[in-house]
Amino acid sequence: MNVALLGFGTVGYGVYEILRKTPDIKVSYVLDLKKHDDIEAISVTDIDPILNDKSVDTVIELIGGLQPAKKFVTAALEAGKNVVTANKFLICESFTELSKKAKEKNVYLRYTAAVGGGIPWLINLSRLSRLSPPDKISGIFNGTTNYILDSMESEKAEFDVALKAAQDLGFAEADPSADIDGLDTLRKIVISANIAFGGVFDSNDTDLFGIRRIKKADIEAAESLGLVCRLLGTAEKTESGASIFVEPAFLDKNSPFAAVKKNFNRISISTPLDENLGFYGAGAGRYPTAFTVVNDCLDIKSGSLEAYSSSFEEKCVDNSKISHKYYVRCPIADAWLSSVTEKSVGEGVITKEIPVSEMHKNAKRLLNESDELFFAEIKVGV
Amino acid sequence: MNVALLGFGTVGYGVYEILRKTPDIKVSYVLDLKKHDDIEAISVTDIDPILNDKSVDTVIELIGGLQPAKKFVTAALEAGKNVVTANKFLICESFTELSKKAKEKNVYLRYTAAVGGGIPWLINLSRLSRLSPPDKISGIFNGTTNYILDSMESEKAEFDVALKAAQDLGFAEADPSADIDGLDTLRKIVISANIAFGGVFDSNDTDLFGIRRIKKADIEAAESLGLVCRLLGTAEKTESGASIFVEPAFLDKNSPFAAVKKNFNRISISTPLDENLGFYGAGAGRYPTAFTVVNDCLDIKSGSLEAYSSSFEEKCVDNSKISHKYYVRCPIADAWLSSVTEKSVGEGVITKEIPVSEMHKNAKRLLNESDELFFAEIKVGV
Repeated sequence: MNVALLGFGTVGYGVYEILRKTPDIKVSYVLDLKKHDDIEAISVTDIDPILNDKSVDTVIELIGGLQPAKKFVTAALEAGKNVVTANKFLICESFTELSKKAKEKNVYLRYTAAVGGGIPWLINLSRLSRLSPPDKISGIFNGTTNYILDSMESEKAEFDVALKAAQDLGFAEADPSADIDGLDTLRKIVISANIAFGGVFDSNDTDLFGIRRIKKADIEAAESLGLVCRLLGTAEKTESGASIFVEPAFLDKNSPFAAVKKNFNRISISTPLDENLGFYGAGAGRYPTAFTVVNDCLDIKSGSLEAYSSSFEEKCVDNSKISHKYYVRCPIADAWLSSVTEKSVGEGVITKEIPVSEMHKNAKRLLNESDELFFAEIKVGV
Repeated sequence: MNVALLGFGTVGYGVYEILRKTPDIKVSYVLDLKKHDDIEAISVTDIDPILNDKSVDTVIELIGGLQPAKKFVTAALEAGKNVVTANKFLICESFTELSKKAKEKNVYLRYTAAVGGGIPWLINLSRLSRLSPPDKISGIFNGTTNYILDSMESEKAEFDVALKAAQDLGFAEADPSADIDGLDTLRKIVISANIAFGGVFDSNDTDLFGIRRIKKADIEAAESLGLVCRLLGTAEKTESGASIFVEPAFLDKNSPFAAVKKNFNRISISTPLDENLGFYGAGAGRYPTAFTVVNDCLDIKSGSLEAYSSSFEEKCVDNSKISHKYYVRCPIADAWLSSVTEKSVGEGVITKEIPVSEMHKNAKRLLNESDELFFAEIKVGV
């Protein structure tokens, strides 16, 4: 197996190191913005030599972001090369297009590391789904937000302080928006839902609320209820499609999700027939992610893999059928909120059970009036 | 794929039901002690028709226990048939013999359901090990004991009461010895160690202490330390082989193991390169286990599987290099125990760090004098 590596950052270098010790796989090219003279592979800054080299059968894309990753991956598939990527943005945006292209060209497209980093999540999800399609997936998909929530709780810190500490330690990026606004989690749950429920869901139809506006007071409110706060992505099968949303959740202290500390991830799956599985591991990091990428290569090499999804039927997202109680902290008086309030806790209130879509729709409306809003679903007994 | 099902109990019937709906797999025979007239497969009480039928390519053994399971499995392999089994006793006892036989006959021997029931543990362990061999495996491998420990804690019950309740609810067998004495856990950790560390370990060289002698007072002692009790199987790589032992452990309340309630299992793996993965799920039960068995069949059907282990080098078990603090409740005065005691807690004491082998050796000695002994490793920060 001759591979070309696109991107030579943290994970790219990890993959390069592991592949150097992996029998029967050779890194022929490394593509990066700058030339590298100190590596055994051919260093290139342009994709063409890779596309034109027929001996390269597999391209590993670790550039991240939508472009030029998409252009490169499309060209590689078009040239009849297998593609392995860890790029959730790319896969979430172009799931159908890239999967169809791979099918048409009879090559493999693997993206296990795109969801869960070091957790072999998608391959397990896919294997389990072939016999017993899940009815629910739920999880902590983002290490940065979990690190922040965990340290706000253990250090009694405000959000800004915890974010700064996470950035200083390398657990959060300089621009942490995709993480703290929940977009990263959303992409991962959408990709998971596509595989689990055999269809394609549009991320634009989902509901999303991150942790950017969380305050120490909210963590304290959770604590006063005996609960802890985590950011969860959830996808639940419905009659017409699925309910898919990302929102903070207040969970029981002895829930397996509460036991997820620092930048770890945990994803769970349940099926109608009594199955309940949880997968825990590093959501990111050089070696955990790199091992997942290289395992994708080994799977391609051994052949006989099934595609992660072969159904491209567009399915509908509907968040109006699933209801929760919510914790809501809203600094302005609001008639809707009063009408759903059951009791107050700390600086916020607990609502009666309301549909997910109703909560998110009203949150959007309230955010036009005040940027201080925060809410979290109350999830007990999970 | 034509399969013969040996055993038609809880899991066997589950497998039969799932396979009836699985395309391209046909259950040709069901072997049971009694004839079944109400099934589509041929009902037999003897293995010979199965062995003589060349159209049967795979035998699923779900009888359990060592004999006649071993005789049947050996004969099936000898006849050139793939074997899928959930029998940990059989695999632990005859790992090398059966694996070599399968290799010699160029057929598959899969036993994913033998460890972790509904958790796809062995296949993940095997996949992860091919790139990055683990240095440690640790877990809750037995649902019955976890159910008992969890209910002793939540119900403030004595062991006998919790065991009786577990039996009444079907979570414990009429003869629960293999579970409560830790033998079931031991077999599973030994099989896992064989795969993880690429060699064969003799279960007779390991150390084993179960929960038969635990009292409410011990659970209370754990609680007074802010800890909870679980039965853990542990295998840790050493220079010459591995340390392998089963013993109760007092763990942090916010450890992922403490979050494992009822009859669930959780197994974790760590590697020298920063990987830390956890797998959670039902350790037993009709459908969880049956799905794992059928997934083994699908893997065989898709071909290109690697064997779970191809190294049969006999490796040595050494429990003298790993040390812990222990909680020990011993009703008689003992000079050794006094010499290692650091402080007392409840009806017991906490020792300084002592080697695992020293604790188990002394426990065996003390058990000759009093049957009232209980001990647990103190495992914090995990």
